[in-house]
Amino acid sequence: MRHIRIFDTTLRDGEQSPGVALSLQQKLEIAHGLARLNVDIIEAGFPVNGASEFECVSRIAAEVKGPVICALARTHKLDIERAAAALEKAEKKRIHVFTSASRVHLEYMLRKTPEEILEISDAMVRYARQFTDDVEFSAQDVMRADIDFVLRLYEAAINAGATTINIPDTTGYGTPQEYGALIRRIHEEVVRGRDVHISAHCHDDLGMATANSLAAVENGATQIECTINGIGERAGNTSLEEVVMALYVRRDHYKAYTQINTRELYRMSRMVERYTGMVVPPNKAIVGDNAFAHESGIHQDGVIKNKETYEIMNAELVGRQPAVLVLGKHSGRAAVKKALADLGYKLDDAQLGAVFARFREIVERKGPIEAEELRALVESESVSTPHLFRLERLQFFSGYGMLPTATVSLETPKGLVTTTAIGDGPVDAVYKALSEAIGFKPELELYRVEAVTGTTEALGEVTVKLKLGEVLATGHGVSPDIIEASARAYLDAANKLATGQSARHPKSLEEVQRSGLGK
Amino acid sequence: MRHIRIFDTTLRDGEQSPGVALSLQQKLEIAHGLARLNVDIIEAGFPVNGASEFECVSRIAAEVKGPVICALARTHKLDIERAAAALEKAEKKRIHVFTSASRVHLEYMLRKTPEEILEISDAMVRYARQFTDDVEFSAQDVMRADIDFVLRLYEAAINAGATTINIPDTTGYGTPQEYGALIRRIHEEVVRGRDVHISAHCHDDLGMATANSLAAVENGATQIECTINGIGERAGNTSLEEVVMALYVRRDHYKAYTQINTRELYRMSRMVERYTGMVVPPNKAIVGDNAFAHESGIHQDGVIKNKETYEIMNAELVGRQPAVLVLGKHSGRAAVKKALADLGYKLDDAQLGAVFARFREIVERKGPIEAEELRALVESESVSTPHLFRLERLQFFSGYGMLPTATVSLETPKGLVTTTAIGDGPVDAVYKALSEAIGFKPELELYRVEAVTGTTEALGEVTVKLKLGEVLATGHGVSPDIIEASARAYLDAANKLATGQSARHPKSLEEVQRSGLGK
Repeated sequence: MRHIRIFDTTLRDGEQSPGVALSLQQKLEIAHGLARLNVDIIEAGFPVNGASEFECVSRIAAEVKGPVICALARTHKLDIERAAAALEKAEKKRIHVFTSASRVHLEYMLRKTPEEILEISDAMVRYARQFTDDVEFSAQDVMRADIDFVLRLYEAAINAGATTINIPDTTGYGTPQEYGALIRRIHEEVVRGRDVHISAHCHDDLGMATANSLAAVENGATQIECTINGIGERAGNTSLEEVVMALYVRRDHYKAYTQINTRELYRMSRMVERYTGMVVPPNKAIVGDNAFAHESGIHQDGVIKNKETYEIMNAELVGRQPAVLVLGKHSGRAAVKKALADLGYKLDDAQLGAVFARFREIVERKGPIEAEELRALVESESVSTPHLFRLERLQFFSGYGMLPTATVSLETPKGLVTTTAIGDGPVDAVYKALSEAIGFKPELELYRVEAVTGTTEALGEVTVKLKLGEVLATGHGVSPDIIEASARAYLDAANKLATGQSARHPKSLEEVQRSGLGK
Repeated sequence: MRHIRIFDTTLRDGEQSPGVALSLQQKLEIAHGLARLNVDIIEAGFPVNGASEFECVSRIAAEVKGPVICALARTHKLDIERAAAALEKAEKKRIHVFTSASRVHLEYMLRKTPEEILEISDAMVRYARQFTDDVEFSAQDVMRADIDFVLRLYEAAINAGATTINIPDTTGYGTPQEYGALIRRIHEEVVRGRDVHISAHCHDDLGMATANSLAAVENGATQIECTINGIGERAGNTSLEEVVMALYVRRDHYKAYTQINTRELYRMSRMVERYTGMVVPPNKAIVGDNAFAHESGIHQDGVIKNKETYEIMNAELVGRQPAVLVLGKHSGRAAVKKALADLGYKLDDAQLGAVFARFREIVERKGPIEAEELRALVESESVSTPHLFRLERLQFFSGYGMLPTATVSLETPKGLVTTTAIGDGPVDAVYKALSEAIGFKPELELYRVEAVTGTTEALGEVTVKLKLGEVLATGHGVSPDIIEASARAYLDAANKLATGQSARHPKSLEEVQRSGLGK
């Protein structure tokens, strides 16, 4: 059985999903989660791409132990130096140097000849090797490139010291047959038995990222690059949970294994869904709500008679347990702490205090809550965001034929501020009142409501994305009242914008070109 | 170039998605949409599975012209007779007879020997041929079955008159390599040049349904069974939009084509998403919000310089146009009718009147609306549901530290009824008041809110599923006020429950066993 390395790029390629903007704190929590999942490599970011990205990679390098920490760099000296500097405190570090291989990329984007690309790649892989023995090399858009050039380019990279060569199908154009055949040629004609890992990096534009990655494994690849829930540019990257479980369920066929702790898959999927706002549909393999549900009579009948009739893996294996834990108003701080620990959260005393206070307030209003609701509470506004603005009072009234009107009181650095506003609906009225109270007017980029356990008596969870100039922040709010949850989500995001806890994204092309950067 | 038939089973296998319950009206609209999409075959349902399913298949058979209309039947005479009766008015009809092939299915579920299965299959395919020349035969769970038995079974089916043999990987267990090899053997050893279509039917439990279906095409299959958005049991079926666009984009590789009108793909995806409540994630290939979005600086830079750098197909090809049409309070009935026609809706005068009244009411409250919002309005409560209950007045107040209180007035068969209630949040309060006013208490199975165009000033769209006993109904509501939209969605579903417009689903195993049926 061959060991297939799982290279997680949720924090780099995944975070490039349009509209996703993770805060430093969220990225750290995801990185710790990936370490619990036992991925082999975490690609933490692209350090040259601004101060906040640099800080994020260096914090992960310093704090997250276990996996190799990887940073991305173009074939530029400055990129490689910034990657090396950000990785300084990592136990195990990798620099990932990338260029492009296809004619259309060379001609229109990089404006270089193939010979120039060969020369620069050789020099920059050598340069990266001065900082670490673990260097990965990629050439974008390989599937649409000239094969002879591709083979020469990877040969050059290995000769220059690359220890992993990654083969990106950047536009998601390949079929399993073609991609497998390409990996086979690279394995036989370039690697030729040398101690170098071949890595698959696929995109899902035609729905085949998982199959392409596994075709690569069949043909000699020993690393798969993937993201939790398959998030990423356009249709996204390969789904980590799909390749991991396919390799496990079909180990008879692939004769390979990963070191992933599969029981953490579901929890990671939910965390990434919440933090990114990228929803997981019910029919998503492995982690969707329906993935283990049987609806039709014949299927239910079969499963009752013998589970194997319609199931090829069991739900516990991927960490999906029924929510049985119920906490009520007699549950103390210790019980909540224990429940949180079971859910995988390690909070410090101040954070626990904040969660416990909100927990008490909610169980007094609506009665006992389930574990899943506690999870939503932790991932909401109470825990990780510094509070410049705090909700003191909120009231609203509306109806069919009425003018939706909201009044809010916020504790702010300038003391208590009370405002009122009329809107198109109650949420709009509340947001207008809040915007007046905080003194700035972010644009609303996304607004999403979810019932945590499916009924209106359950907690409502609201996710918003606010944009101020070029800065995006995601906010979460939880409450039995969806309008109140909407207000809390807005304030969570507004607090991030006001305290610099938001993720910075180069949104406009002009800005990217001005800074001379991009990823 | 070979012609690959697209067999759509959104209304049969897709409707088996846990929690999905389409009304007759919704199924008819989807079937008409599939005809516009130009699918080759529509599997309309499983007629023996109850009166409403029978009615649905026969209405589609009578009304929907163009595609072959197909009905499902087990290897039972009654099933086949009901299928034939439901299909009576179809221009082109197919009966799809299915059994199982794997040891675990035969032993635990069907409790028959392989020889018995062969004998019954032969007899029942012959029986089906008495009603139509177009008979499809399937054996469930082929990937885990004994290959010699599989080959004998399909040989028997062809000898008995099956014109299409469908090869279901029921549990989503296969890899492209294996599934392709199986299709190759069936092609070479069973079909042997006879005029019989081989069909691929895959499930996405390991994320490989699309790749497996296309591997089948590479190895001799000429039909793919699939659903819009890949909905279906567990992780769902093969996505129609993925296989169609992969065959188109990679026609150089597959040397095959479909007759699908790809410009209808996006609209169908949205319609099925709304009606089923099965959300499409932003990173879904072809139809997700991000599928054609470019986020990172490098990608944006590349796309500006040459679209081909990061795009393998263009968005217009799948019918994704920016919403440019804006309608305001000066837009008359004719303008709304024209806009609806452009969106693909053909409404009768009464329906148009209902939509226009709601349109006027909304533009007066919030100003002009976009095409996408008009679409949401049509698909909401106003159009297709008979109204036993109608919202006359709604008012609510709530807030942080207040007791959420709602008052509603409904026009009912007994006259105007006004009720008031306190809840955990305003939606809960409104639902308690509505439940009292309508005089019955359905359970809330799903509650989902969506902002139609992403801001709170946009229309909010709410989807609910209500369950009364064993009957499920889905409701939609649209309003600038999400609480009011919630009330409208609840009433829409309640009207369906009260007027028998809901889909009947055998939810409990006991009920399935009692009726002796199931699919």
